[in-house]
Amino acid sequence: MTALSGKLSQATAERLSLYLRCAEQDRQAGLLKTSSKRLAEALGINDTQVRKDLTALGHLGRPGIGYTIAELIVALRKTLGLDRGWNCALIGVGHLARALLRYQGLRERSFRIVALFDNDPAKVGETFDLLTIYPLAEMAHYVRTMEIELAILAVPAAAAQAVTDQLANAGIRGILNFAPTVLRLPEGVRFVNVDVALQMEQLTFRLQSSD
Amino acid sequence: MTALSGKLSQATAERLSLYLRCAEQDRQAGLLKTSSKRLAEALGINDTQVRKDLTALGHLGRPGIGYTIAELIVALRKTLGLDRGWNCALIGVGHLARALLRYQGLRERSFRIVALFDNDPAKVGETFDLLTIYPLAEMAHYVRTMEIELAILAVPAAAAQAVTDQLANAGIRGILNFAPTVLRLPEGVRFVNVDVALQMEQLTFRLQSSD
Repeated sequence: MTALSGKLSQATAERLSLYLRCAEQDRQAGLLKTSSKRLAEALGINDTQVRKDLTALGHLGRPGIGYTIAELIVALRKTLGLDRGWNCALIGVGHLARALLRYQGLRERSFRIVALFDNDPAKVGETFDLLTIYPLAEMAHYVRTMEIELAILAVPAAAAQAVTDQLANAGIRGILNFAPTVLRLPEGVRFVNVDVALQMEQLTFRLQSSD
Repeated sequence: MTALSGKLSQATAERLSLYLRCAEQDRQAGLLKTSSKRLAEALGINDTQVRKDLTALGHLGRPGIGYTIAELIVALRKTLGLDRGWNCALIGVGHLARALLRYQGLRERSFRIVALFDNDPAKVGETFDLLTIYPLAEMAHYVRTMEIELAILAVPAAAAQAVTDQLANAGIRGILNFAPTVLRLPEGVRFVNVDVALQMEQLTFRLQSSD
């Protein structure tokens, strides 16, 4: 059950990502300052929590004055590891992968999809968005030469564990998993699960409790 | 910024979904009982938090004895609104929608995709997985006659706001949004955002902090 571990720090990290989105929106709207109260309202949480979260980032903000948005954005991006680029491999080139290749949300961030991998001989050698599909067996080579650190796992659930082990052996450090299955994770590899059913449950939970 | 509101209750609801997955895994493994300690370990949280979360569900479990897995599953599914089926519409039939149609994680849950909608005249009338693509303009009709309550929004970011307003007018109660944009939500519509970049940031945050 290692896939679910570290939930506490994950909740904090998710809030940092949301603070970043709020600050970026405010900057786009032309604002220069924000406050723990404003951030708290946007997230629907207590402003004490916001101040506590942001204190961990260093000497940001002043009582009664608030946070300089530009400073806050720099600090949040640094904490989230977004002050540098990350080369990513996309594993399993089906419909989901093709959707992710076009997904602006990733392109605008620090994530560059630089290589595609698939085990299907019919797909290997094909090109999407200027990227060639390589066989999984050659991953270690490309991970090293292309300095790939992250992998987005978009393979069927039945294949996910075997591919995860291959990714770890190839030197991948972090995996974003879309397969609806719980994976045993190799030592030293970080992991985030995108569970669409769980997100749908968040919706029905809210509808249920508002009925 | 209403899209980000209600974060506190969302954290709790996410834990309920994760408890459900753990309990279901344990049941599949043939176990009959679980404990707050076991659930806490799986999620990487404190067992006091688990007991607090589960107390809200009713009289479950006994000190020193733990929880009957079958009872726990029934209670969690009820709280999450999974003790009934939910008819869903899939809006925007591109690669993401096609991936979601095949996504077993949804099929295994209570979510039935019963209708597809798209504004592209070239797509309207086409069929995927026995489902016909209808024009968005006719959505209100189908929402009523097919008793559709939820919509999965898989349209480009630029179209998301206009389509959201159409969904609300058609009587949709909840929206799962994949478009990487912050939406102004019509009154009475619940909303969950699937933000792939945010999930990637959770990964780089953990890699960053382990460096």
